[in-house]
Amino acid sequence: MKLLLDLCIIPMGVGVSVSKYIAACELVLQEAKLKTHLHAYGTNIEGEWDDVMAAVKRCHEKVHEMGAPRISTTIRMGTRTDRDESLEAKVRSVNEKL
Amino acid sequence: MKLLLDLCIIPMGVGVSVSKYIAACELVLQEAKLKTHLHAYGTNIEGEWDDVMAAVKRCHEKVHEMGAPRISTTIRMGTRTDRDESLEAKVRSVNEKL
Amino acid sequence: MKLLLDLCIIPMGVGVSVSKYIAACELVLQEAKLKTHLHAYGTNIEGEWDDVMAAVKRCHEKVHEMGAPRISTTIRMGTRTDRDESLEAKVRSVNEKL
Amino acid sequence: MKLLLDLCIIPMGVGVSVSKYIAACELVLQEAKLKTHLHAYGTNIEGEWDDVMAAVKRCHEKVHEMGAPRISTTIRMGTRTDRDESLEAKVRSVNEKL
Repeated sequence: MKLLLDLCIIPMGVGVSVSKYIAACELVLQEAKLKTHLHAYGTNIEGEWDDVMAAVKRCHEKVHEMGAPRISTTIRMGTRTDRDESLEAKVRSVNEKL
Repeated sequence: MKLLLDLCIIPMGVGVSVSKYIAACELVLQEAKLKTHLHAYGTNIEGEWDDVMAAVKRCHEKVHEMGAPRISTTIRMGTRTDRDESLEAKVRSVNEKL
Repeated sequence: MKLLLDLCIIPMGVGVSVSKYIAACELVLQEAKLKTHLHAYGTNIEGEWDDVMAAVKRCHEKVHEMGAPRISTTIRMGTRTDRDESLEAKVRSVNEKL
Repeated sequence: MKLLLDLCIIPMGVGVSVSKYIAACELVLQEAKLKTHLHAYGTNIEGEWDDVMAAVKRCHEKVHEMGAPRISTTIRMGTRTDRDESLEAKVRSVNEKL
């Protein structure tokens, strides 16, 4: 099952600056060889369900290892059975109508 | 790794009434023997990371099997390493301060 | 326009325990005389769009006044034009199918 | 109060293809002269709180006018009092650490 997911991880208890934790998660996603797009409020991820979810779990483990005692994460994600979907196709589909 | 997760599944392409799909997901969570609390905008779930995530995947599979061609899901979730956490404790902690 | 909204406010830069900030937001919502239901991952709110959104803004102002330098909030919300909707009706609609 | 917000609007009851509604919301945001970035799972928006929230309300009104009887929206948003923040700065801050 193909999964498109948007991940936003918020480390808590480590102050207001959290970009180093987000950067570490980007590396986790790269190591997992997943297609990604970083934006200002999260990271779009495309891949097989199990691969994407394993990487999300690894992100939590990594951020805890870096010293964050608590993590609050939000995810938007979608699956579809009617046709294949991709990150680029979603954006292109909107832009074609503008 | 203990996980508290709030799940909101939106089947698309099946009209405006989606409660039967949500009910089916409640049964999936019950079968997984996870602690849950249904509210008006999602379902709180408590359990081990892998058990909770397996149930979330099963919910997507179930809703597709019921005929929904597309699903858009949002999740809020949290882990912590400083102490154990539970759904009840989170609500109690706020209520004690009111 | 009637709005059902689920609010989850995360103060950042104030340590791992944030329940006193959430409690303060509950009071803001009570003062606004909005119908609410607190759960383990947020608060369901029901009311007119402008009233609910004014209360959400007041929550941000309040949490900053209490000393949090940064806030990360997630919202799920819904409007519909086909019929009236309420927090209770949404939960009842699912429970009737269980 | 400056607001960074990530908006994801899901029209319900109009089938699986919703890009024309998202495109209409992009126009609403352009007309409001807000800084935006469209990605595969939403749109980053930057502006003053009241301006951004007025545009979000206008998006809901527009999508209903186009015929969608129900809308389910998710928002991530943040405010901070310690320093000014921008969409570009958030992404740059992560990229500098990669």
